[in-house]
Amino acid sequence: MLEQSGQAREPVLTPGYQEGGVPIGGALISEDGTILGRGHNQRFQKNSAILHGEMDTLENAGRLPGKAYKNCTMYTTLSPCNMCSGACIMYGVKRVVLGENETFQGAEELLRSQGIEVVNLNNEECKELMRKFIAERPQDWYEDIGE
Amino acid sequence: MLEQSGQAREPVLTPGYQEGGVPIGGALISEDGTILGRGHNQRFQKNSAILHGEMDTLENAGRLPGKAYKNCTMYTTLSPCNMCSGACIMYGVKRVVLGENETFQGAEELLRSQGIEVVNLNNEECKELMRKFIAERPQDWYEDIGE
Ligand SMILES: [Ca+2]
Ligand SMILES: [Ca+2]
Ligand SMILES: [Zn+2]
Ligand SMILES: [Zn+2]
Repeated sequence: MLEQSGQAREPVLTPGYQEGGVPIGGALISEDGTILGRGHNQRFQKNSAILHGEMDTLENAGRLPGKAYKNCTMYTTLSPCNMCSGACIMYGVKRVVLGENETFQGAEELLRSQGIEVVNLNNEECKELMRKFIAERPQDWYEDIGE
Repeated sequence: MLEQSGQAREPVLTPGYQEGGVPIGGALISEDGTILGRGHNQRFQKNSAILHGEMDTLENAGRLPGKAYKNCTMYTTLSPCNMCSGACIMYGVKRVVLGENETFQGAEELLRSQGIEVVNLNNEECKELMRKFIAERPQDWYEDIGE
């Protein structure tokens, strides 16, 4: 499925880094390939404490009926934190596809325990971008994950 | 502690209902009683898919260093959903005080499993307000919780 869709891998290449932000992006894509929303971390761009990439994605997708989420995949650059995983659980997305989980280990087991499929792309580009960001701006990174 | 603080119980009486919104509010209060942020559900007022009462509260509290959350209590009208519980876990708040959990059962066990103290006020006013809202606007309520 990932191989079929050029769209599907695109969210890993977020504009966040170029904008001076945390380089994590997301996309919410329905079963038929429709992109319902895209987003990226907005902590620095919008001075936000809650707009991680996945949250910005859900916000940009807008108010949808609950059933709209049930066959969706949330794509994200990085293993989703407890907040973003909780949002995926609350809306009941079907699948979470993450770029990598080496630079940060999120709540993947929690997602699985709630019946959500989790796919780790183990993508080198994602790892390199995150390593670069964390090395350049460690305090900004810790702030973003509440540490 | 709750009894000491008039502030502490105030968030249960959210302006949300009067504004035409989901009547759930929150407040993030530090150990010394400082209100770091207050908020309320903004699904209808701001057309938001992510601004539950607790999320709006965190957003209004603004960007804080991770350590600022660690001795805080999140007050909320209703047992927090997976998204809002996940946000409390991500930021590592110390305690969650909820108005009631009869009209909706959130992720209290998850919070406790992460070492967060959970206090249920079992407040009749909160229950009545939620019952009234859910009876009047069931579809809006289901949309808000992703059902
Ligand atoms: Ca993030
Ligand atoms: Ca809510
Ligand atoms: Zn997150
Ligand atoms: Zn919530």
